[in-house]
Amino acid sequence: MEVSNQVTRLPDGVFPAGCPSRVVLDHVTSKWGVLVLVALSEGTHRWGELRRRAEGVSEKMLAQTLKTLERDGLVHREAHPVIPPHVDYRLTEMGQGLAALLVPLVAWVFDHADAIVGENT
Amino acid sequence: MEVSNQVTRLPDGVFPAGCPSRVVLDHVTSKWGVLVLVALSEGTHRWGELRRRAEGVSEKMLAQTLKTLERDGLVHREAHPVIPPHVDYRLTEMGQGLAALLVPLVAWVFDHADAIVGENT
Repeated sequence: MEVSNQVTRLPDGVFPAGCPSRVVLDHVTSKWGVLVLVALSEGTHRWGELRRRAEGVSEKMLAQTLKTLERDGLVHREAHPVIPPHVDYRLTEMGQGLAALLVPLVAWVFDHADAIVGENT
Repeated sequence: MEVSNQVTRLPDGVFPAGCPSRVVLDHVTSKWGVLVLVALSEGTHRWGELRRRAEGVSEKMLAQTLKTLERDGLVHREAHPVIPPHVDYRLTEMGQGLAALLVPLVAWVFDHADAIVGENT
């Protein structure tokens, strides 16, 4: 199958265990990582808004997910020095590049999920 | 951020827990699901070849992953009636549509993984 996007070829088709790309792939395709990145693709969000979007995420898992994505340089966290405290999250430029590829994927899943789950029943 | 692909808008930005799309999203973004789908995007593969591509996958996890993707209608399994037994896996048409979105994502991760992991150290 031909993919028309301008992308680097995958190195000889093998996904070597223990290489950085596997670590990063796990982060960005994690259950909550995907949902957080897609939610932030629409713009800056506060913590509570992210919790609402990724329905079912626990406080602990959301904190862990955001911390990982922040450490990866994909999400920027900004704490505003106001009372009550106010913390914003947004995508970095690199995060935006990634989200541009994730959003169509998630939209595809939304479009096809009913048909797919229908096949299972 | 604007995404130029022609995709259905996500429903009001919320990812409801327990809806089919969340189940399917978990399947297609699972650790081994991604690697198997991307490997099959290049064509038909046999079991052993898939194990080699997704380095580190156990027999059990590969079997489980392929079974899930087959039940989802994304992968087609074909057993040839020969001796010794010979089983092929390939993407269905729907699986190809999905893989066309997954391949650029994985390629992006390959391109950026070193920079990202570098930020962590």
